[in-house]
Amino acid sequence: MKIILLSGGSGTRLWPLSNEARSKQFLKVLPHHPQSESMIQRVWRQLKQVGLSASTLISTNALQADAIQSQLEETIPLVLEPQRRNTFPAIALSAAYFHSLLHLHPTEVICVLPIDAYVDDLFFHKMKQLESLVGESHCDLALIGVKPTYPSAKYGYIVPEPLPIPSETNGMAVNHFVEKPDEETAKKLIEQHALWNCGVFAFQLHYLTSLLMEQGFPVDYHKLWEAYDQLPEISFDYEIVEKATRRRVIPYDGDWSDLGTWNTLTEKMDTSLLGKGVIDPDTENTHLINELNIPVIIAGLSDIVVAASADGIMVTDKLASATPEIKEMIKRVKQRAMYEERRWGWYRVLDHFQLSDKTEVLIKRIGVLTGKNLSYQTHQRRSEVWTVIRGEGEFALDDQLHRVKPGDVLTIPVGSKHGIQALSELEFIEVQRGKPLEEKDIVRLFMDWEEVRKHCRKE
Amino acid sequence: MKIILLSGGSGTRLWPLSNEARSKQFLKVLPHHPQSESMIQRVWRQLKQVGLSASTLISTNALQADAIQSQLEETIPLVLEPQRRNTFPAIALSAAYFHSLLHLHPTEVICVLPIDAYVDDLFFHKMKQLESLVGESHCDLALIGVKPTYPSAKYGYIVPEPLPIPSETNGMAVNHFVEKPDEETAKKLIEQHALWNCGVFAFQLHYLTSLLMEQGFPVDYHKLWEAYDQLPEISFDYEIVEKATRRRVIPYDGDWSDLGTWNTLTEKMDTSLLGKGVIDPDTENTHLINELNIPVIIAGLSDIVVAASADGIMVTDKLASATPEIKEMIKRVKQRAMYEERRWGWYRVLDHFQLSDKTEVLIKRIGVLTGKNLSYQTHQRRSEVWTVIRGEGEFALDDQLHRVKPGDVLTIPVGSKHGIQALSELEFIEVQRGKPLEEKDIVRLFMDWEEVRKHCRKE
Repeated sequence: MKIILLSGGSGTRLWPLSNEARSKQFLKVLPHHPQSESMIQRVWRQLKQVGLSASTLISTNALQADAIQSQLEETIPLVLEPQRRNTFPAIALSAAYFHSLLHLHPTEVICVLPIDAYVDDLFFHKMKQLESLVGESHCDLALIGVKPTYPSAKYGYIVPEPLPIPSETNGMAVNHFVEKPDEETAKKLIEQHALWNCGVFAFQLHYLTSLLMEQGFPVDYHKLWEAYDQLPEISFDYEIVEKATRRRVIPYDGDWSDLGTWNTLTEKMDTSLLGKGVIDPDTENTHLINELNIPVIIAGLSDIVVAASADGIMVTDKLASATPEIKEMIKRVKQRAMYEERRWGWYRVLDHFQLSDKTEVLIKRIGVLTGKNLSYQTHQRRSEVWTVIRGEGEFALDDQLHRVKPGDVLTIPVGSKHGIQALSELEFIEVQRGKPLEEKDIVRLFMDWEEVRKHCRKE
Repeated sequence: MKIILLSGGSGTRLWPLSNEARSKQFLKVLPHHPQSESMIQRVWRQLKQVGLSASTLISTNALQADAIQSQLEETIPLVLEPQRRNTFPAIALSAAYFHSLLHLHPTEVICVLPIDAYVDDLFFHKMKQLESLVGESHCDLALIGVKPTYPSAKYGYIVPEPLPIPSETNGMAVNHFVEKPDEETAKKLIEQHALWNCGVFAFQLHYLTSLLMEQGFPVDYHKLWEAYDQLPEISFDYEIVEKATRRRVIPYDGDWSDLGTWNTLTEKMDTSLLGKGVIDPDTENTHLINELNIPVIIAGLSDIVVAASADGIMVTDKLASATPEIKEMIKRVKQRAMYEERRWGWYRVLDHFQLSDKTEVLIKRIGVLTGKNLSYQTHQRRSEVWTVIRGEGEFALDDQLHRVKPGDVLTIPVGSKHGIQALSELEFIEVQRGKPLEEKDIVRLFMDWEEVRKHCRKE
């Protein structure tokens, strides 16, 4: 069995702790002794424990690639969508990868797993059962259905055939799906043994590749990549699962939550306070997640969440936190990302402002991991000053290499070629000045430090 | 008549917008077309309008002196307490200043005015009436009493003699004071024509100097300054007003508020939002005051205040905001001030952290007003790097003067003498590194830039 771990999402629901580059799955808020871990770290740890991690690829986008590599600290195959287009295209591209690059057998079972599933270990054993179910029962699709704990109006329901009584391993035949019913309908569905759809689907590889070919799409990875913008922008549920004929579902009776809202996320935290601050002890069910370096005080307010990051501050009661109105408000205040994890480390924006003559000033604190490097690059419209505060590095400026240490000040005039490699964990403060400061004002000469060294003279 | 404007207070009630160096009176949140003004700016403007500003001195402490000078942009006599000791010592020291330095006539009328009085212009005309009242009626003390608008349990009451009916100019004789009665008692007091005590007292200078001499204290300013720590740490109300025998009160029937709580302060604002952010339109009576460079979203919460500054973030419902518990919480989270206004300009802390080897790093954005300068100084345990981002300046380093402009990087090694004067409005980013970084690690060689210039060579 191969697993496609779907790591997508723009993550605005948990703004300001999540943004395009740091979706909710990267938030380190879940308890895991002695520290905390993120959703993706938790799922990966669970996949490892059941021996499935080596069979897993992650379907994601380029913006998340750096964060994944930094949080999982391993070489994991990533299939990067050329653009964001919903789950059907993403899964199709991964299937093409298995088919044309890994040359998997057409009967290989593929299982799709969403990244935001907060489940206990039993769930992964259910996934293994899916494999034999798809192999033995010759169904097109096998699903995991979560046993509902209450008649929720927020989830989709998988409604089984009335008979026979479900067996532990063969599950139940699926009759149809109901998306977000009202509470009354949900109650009736539960009486009919309906289960929550948690987005886990298993199928044999040929099932999807055949469907793609029928629709006239290539199943060669590179060709499908090229044709990606022609794939329908639709979910896998609608395009494949609802249209399939022979579908079975295995019930899972354990902890499950999609961790997509402040409500569900804070329920899983083992503390009401992460970061600097104080919560009035007379409040109840109030949570503070503070990534800033300054304290937050919450007084006299129960059932609220305060989340603060370098991107902004959200103050919301838990019920309002999942409304469409809040999405609109987030859109209105959005500005550049103030904290990002990258392949080479991380940066935090300390300040960003414009002077009256339109010169922009951007101050960053930048961390480069040992052995990693910033690419060798030039800018046409900005000068930079780096003050090294920690670690040692090899700094390249206009084809000359220099060893640098804390206290060194590196002045990079407009147009100069520059790059740096961390010899030990390196931090520096960067002051950019430009008119205007634009991300696109960058020409990368070499990404790899060995090439930079070959190109440059030593001091 | 001379006025003592009392500008004290540690201002923790409105944390994080106020701190020791920036008390509530410096918050620019009150509407005044086309921008907003602070309490001290408002009172000063009103004093000017009625022609009383030239007769006013400000009794304050050294921490506030810079903010006062920067906000009022004038040379105003300041009487600085050598230490914080309540209002009786502060007023006594100002009286000694009038007596021994200005040599005022003993019958000169002195009027004490608290800084946090939000009043309309009529109030200042009442103050002028106090002058003639003290002069003509030969009473020891004359007060302004605010006509109560509701039976508040938060204020002190001035209870007049039952008869005769008050006259417009002679006011009423005062019978006694009641401090923070319960609501029932307050109702009865109001029936007896009692007034709120707003802390405005007028007396002839000799009245206070005589009392000081009787108690064995000097009335020479310098001697009283030396003996300041022996003055009783008590309010002027308790030490003088309650013990006086002949007291009269003039009623003031107008707008009055002490602006000491989020509730009273936000009532006077003409907008619910100052700074970056969005407030859910479905909320009511919710205020956001955001001095940070990042947006705040408030969703689904009515009757709350969110205040954010470089010092921290307060999220409170308006009722909880004035409780003793909140004072305790503020004490727990207090850290170094992140924003301060100084005589020469201002600074904002952008980041402050410690490395694993205990080296501290502090990053500041510093603004120096045209013509002002930082003192010529040295440090024994820290190096500094300044990146100039705006304006021009004269920089002194180890007795050498240099002209500096945006883009210049000024490296100041440990032990180097340095200082800077702004030739036009100057801004620079400072990166301090030290082990440890301490405020006291500073030796000031010259404060005045003319002296620095004489001492240094030109480039």
